[in-house]
Amino acid sequence: MRWRNTSGESDCDVLIIGAGPAGLVCANALANFGVNIRIVDQRPVKVAAGQADGIRPRTIEVFQSYGLAERLLREGTLVNRTAFYNPGPNGGIERTGRIPDVIAPTARYPFEVTLHQGGIEAIFLDSMAALGVHVERPIVPTSIELTTVETELKDPNSHAVKVVLKHLDAAATEDATETEIVHAKFVLGADGAHSWVRKSLGIAMEGDQTDYIWGALDFIPDTDLPDIRNFCVVHSHSGSCVVIPREGDTVRLYIQLSDADVQDAATGRVDKSKFSPERLLDIARRSLSPFTIAAPRGVEWWTLYIIGQRVASKYSVQERVFIAGDACHTHSPKGGQGMNASINDSHGLAWKLTHVIRGWAGLSLLKTYEFERRKYAQDLIAFDKRFAALVSDKPRTDEDADGVTHEELLEATQIFGPFMNGIGVYYAPSVLTRMTHQASVRGLVIGQCLHPHIFVRAADALPVDIHDMLPADGRFGVAVFAGDADTHLAALARELDALLRRHADQRGGVAAVFNVFTVLARSKDDVDYTDVPELLRPHWSRVLLDDTDMFGRSGGGGYDAYGIDRTRGAVVIVRPDGFVGTVAPLEHLSEIDDYFSSFMVGPGQ
Amino acid sequence: MRWRNTSGESDCDVLIIGAGPAGLVCANALANFGVNIRIVDQRPVKVAAGQADGIRPRTIEVFQSYGLAERLLREGTLVNRTAFYNPGPNGGIERTGRIPDVIAPTARYPFEVTLHQGGIEAIFLDSMAALGVHVERPIVPTSIELTTVETELKDPNSHAVKVVLKHLDAAATEDATETEIVHAKFVLGADGAHSWVRKSLGIAMEGDQTDYIWGALDFIPDTDLPDIRNFCVVHSHSGSCVVIPREGDTVRLYIQLSDADVQDAATGRVDKSKFSPERLLDIARRSLSPFTIAAPRGVEWWTLYIIGQRVASKYSVQERVFIAGDACHTHSPKGGQGMNASINDSHGLAWKLTHVIRGWAGLSLLKTYEFERRKYAQDLIAFDKRFAALVSDKPRTDEDADGVTHEELLEATQIFGPFMNGIGVYYAPSVLTRMTHQASVRGLVIGQCLHPHIFVRAADALPVDIHDMLPADGRFGVAVFAGDADTHLAALARELDALLRRHADQRGGVAAVFNVFTVLARSKDDVDYTDVPELLRPHWSRVLLDDTDMFGRSGGGGYDAYGIDRTRGAVVIVRPDGFVGTVAPLEHLSEIDDYFSSFMVGPGQ
Repeated sequence: MRWRNTSGESDCDVLIIGAGPAGLVCANALANFGVNIRIVDQRPVKVAAGQADGIRPRTIEVFQSYGLAERLLREGTLVNRTAFYNPGPNGGIERTGRIPDVIAPTARYPFEVTLHQGGIEAIFLDSMAALGVHVERPIVPTSIELTTVETELKDPNSHAVKVVLKHLDAAATEDATETEIVHAKFVLGADGAHSWVRKSLGIAMEGDQTDYIWGALDFIPDTDLPDIRNFCVVHSHSGSCVVIPREGDTVRLYIQLSDADVQDAATGRVDKSKFSPERLLDIARRSLSPFTIAAPRGVEWWTLYIIGQRVASKYSVQERVFIAGDACHTHSPKGGQGMNASINDSHGLAWKLTHVIRGWAGLSLLKTYEFERRKYAQDLIAFDKRFAALVSDKPRTDEDADGVTHEELLEATQIFGPFMNGIGVYYAPSVLTRMTHQASVRGLVIGQCLHPHIFVRAADALPVDIHDMLPADGRFGVAVFAGDADTHLAALARELDALLRRHADQRGGVAAVFNVFTVLARSKDDVDYTDVPELLRPHWSRVLLDDTDMFGRSGGGGYDAYGIDRTRGAVVIVRPDGFVGTVAPLEHLSEIDDYFSSFMVGPGQ
Repeated sequence: MRWRNTSGESDCDVLIIGAGPAGLVCANALANFGVNIRIVDQRPVKVAAGQADGIRPRTIEVFQSYGLAERLLREGTLVNRTAFYNPGPNGGIERTGRIPDVIAPTARYPFEVTLHQGGIEAIFLDSMAALGVHVERPIVPTSIELTTVETELKDPNSHAVKVVLKHLDAAATEDATETEIVHAKFVLGADGAHSWVRKSLGIAMEGDQTDYIWGALDFIPDTDLPDIRNFCVVHSHSGSCVVIPREGDTVRLYIQLSDADVQDAATGRVDKSKFSPERLLDIARRSLSPFTIAAPRGVEWWTLYIIGQRVASKYSVQERVFIAGDACHTHSPKGGQGMNASINDSHGLAWKLTHVIRGWAGLSLLKTYEFERRKYAQDLIAFDKRFAALVSDKPRTDEDADGVTHEELLEATQIFGPFMNGIGVYYAPSVLTRMTHQASVRGLVIGQCLHPHIFVRAADALPVDIHDMLPADGRFGVAVFAGDADTHLAALARELDALLRRHADQRGGVAAVFNVFTVLARSKDDVDYTDVPELLRPHWSRVLLDDTDMFGRSGGGGYDAYGIDRTRGAVVIVRPDGFVGTVAPLEHLSEIDDYFSSFMVGPGQ
């Protein structure tokens, strides 16, 4: 796996430092796109238990786009309902309400999936392995250096970043080469909250530590709490606690701690060695009373957190070295956002790197990574401050009129729902997000992900989610909502094809760059796929109808849901990361040309 | 993999001869149930292409019960719609109608799945391999002998069958032992239409060869037939033809041939050597005109069939040697039943063998195998005669008033639908099928498979199909539909548990023999799983509610669908093969005792 020459120097397109979720998602995506990568990690083995765990609806859709949702859903636990507990009249807690865990009417997967981080990482490791890419470990970078030659910096094909790697097991494995030098076109620092890459580049973290201190505990409980298989937010007079069901019968508890619980009296710092899982469980037991809870089979994993809510001041240096994941943002674990933010950072970066490496787009496209993902992280911190405070604060009681009411928490959950689920994440206008014809799709938001919807395939009347037409294969989706007529199809096909060819002809042809399919507002009884010109359906499976399936169990109402006029139609451009990039009315297809011309390099340039 | 002693003799519980679908399904099931088996096949390698291919809705449910449906659905093609073509006014064919491919309102999987036989076999081979069981090949049996000692015949634990096996590759692999002797408690002959086991036992095939001769052809077509991805029944003036979409872009054509097409003039026998796939395609082209069809990438597989519709006169000798699959029944391929019949033969046999080998039931239980499956095969032949005639006969025209009309074919498809789908297969009353309290479940039929239905889990409100509560693990399902009250639950739990213990106490306890779960006719907002006594829910996941999920997308109406009174309830006993065995009103639980006492051996007997 080490493509070093005898001098200990080698080239690669992208060097990824860190094999947590952010690093693995980027490596897997780039491997899928055929980019020449290496990924190294300092840990000798992968994580086995504990750590981050909650996968949110939009992130499940991202797994699906890489063909990995099936395994995630099989191995993980589906969390489907949230229960709220507050102090009752007798002092102990009582249930005050239950709601769906996920409030997102458009979500394809309206639940959260929990799986320990090692399980998540294994999904990507196995996917990469099938493509011949493996994590090299234990390896640490010891220096990173960006070229100062302007022409090299501006040339996407130059190996502008020089990284020295140290093989920690070199002695043990009798590997004579303890250090090596890698010349990479691009480097991704996905090396966690204490990121060596970030520090080496002198990027500051902005924001403060807060006062909240929490413990986390994974175990198989013996309990009479009836909501033990639901997400529970527990406010009690003895502190707060969050219950998260995990794979198998395991449960994670997040337990609020007071300063006195954990601080070393002398230094004021958290001293984990003075703590124990038994003490954590005792504190949880007090807040869960009158319900009982025990860990007869012991504790699988535990840790302590002090919540720090911070965002990196920038996400890249000269669009050649990037950071992603915890290296960019740290926040509380209870909103269940951490791993989701990391996965989506890399998901958003990988295709952009690919297009630049292929010469399809210029380096400036990569500016949109920081523009989109840093704004998201700032929103996340703002949400997290509000949510962590609500969960950590005392409950409202007759004695404490400043406390948090059940209603306040419920309202916050509902307001923040779309953001927490990822479905509501919005990328502001840029070269990748053109709002010109937003009015043509009143049910979609340009800059948000395309909503899933079930249509039926014209060829076999099988119901198909439109997301399954849009795998994360690095291509732009061109969804031709051609409306309810067929007289204009031949002319539309010719015009669109001519337009797409301008951006694709020297890149392997339209099908190599664009994923074209057609969605008609017509009945499966009236249309054959052969009625649609081949330019609008490169395969028999690429014609969808806005109609119900053979049994009326699913499908229909897609044009209405997307807010597309059935007589006028529209072409929806879906970015390779699943976000709506722009929309063109059928009579203004030049919008599509303008969109791609704004960031794609003209062929031959 | 050969547990032979130095004398070349060995024992096993079950020896399976033949590793086609029937043999593999039995081997996989028995391996899952922990039975000591061997499976041998004469072919040096497994089948790679062609052969049988269509998996019907009930058979998909059987795959699901072994945890194998996910892979089947991923690798196969879903056939969802049937199109009918008949002669049009201009002489060529035209479409006369389209209907769902599967007409089965209660089917969980309302479609057919096509996958070449090698793909189907690989699913079972891999499942067995994970349990350490592999097919030994190439091996042929050379003699089979049943003990004549009466006490041995009557003792389920005796190794009453002696089989001599010949290792065809003994010389090549320098294996000194060319033949070996296996002493098996039971033997299954799953060795195909020309079954050596059947012939060795002197079992006759009853029925006639018919006049229908068909060719089959697998290829990736270039065609303008708009229904190429649907099941098509084509009647033309130039013969009949059936189109079946296959995995990827492959299609199978079944093409009607005349005697003159295929017979050797001298012998009157079919002479495949005088035929070719090009000639088959030419004949198909004539019947599909005016549509065009070509095979630009060549033909993957082809064969000729003369339809024989025959059933073995018996399915076992002394309940020690059995036959299954094509060894028992042969019929036309066009109804798409062959592999389904084979899989369900073995699915029905494997659990019965297991219960007898474990000493839970006496040998007489095995009589129900022939009773149930031979009757099914006879029904299948009756169906096939009617269906094959309809497909093969000439279309009705002005000149030919005796021809088949579109309406006749449509009607036959609808009448035979439930049988073709497997959902309607019915096992007549026997020790395993007691009809006494049929009136307590007006929407289910005792002797048919339990209909799938979605309920929600009380613990986490997640929608769950009741089939997923009933994996094929060899246990009887005890589904306690306890109704809409909770006052009686404690008494019901005690009575049912005492009753089940009588059949389970010396067999590892209730959970080893019975799969108990509870279904309440109550709302998820009113019930916690902890409200149900532990005897009625051995795990938090074992309480279902007849209610919709958190989003109202699925669930609800289960008591009504099953025809169970919400106030009176009922206990439904589901056999290990998914068929409803009997039903007991809550006030007549003794019915359950009577049922199990009729075929289970009393502990200590």
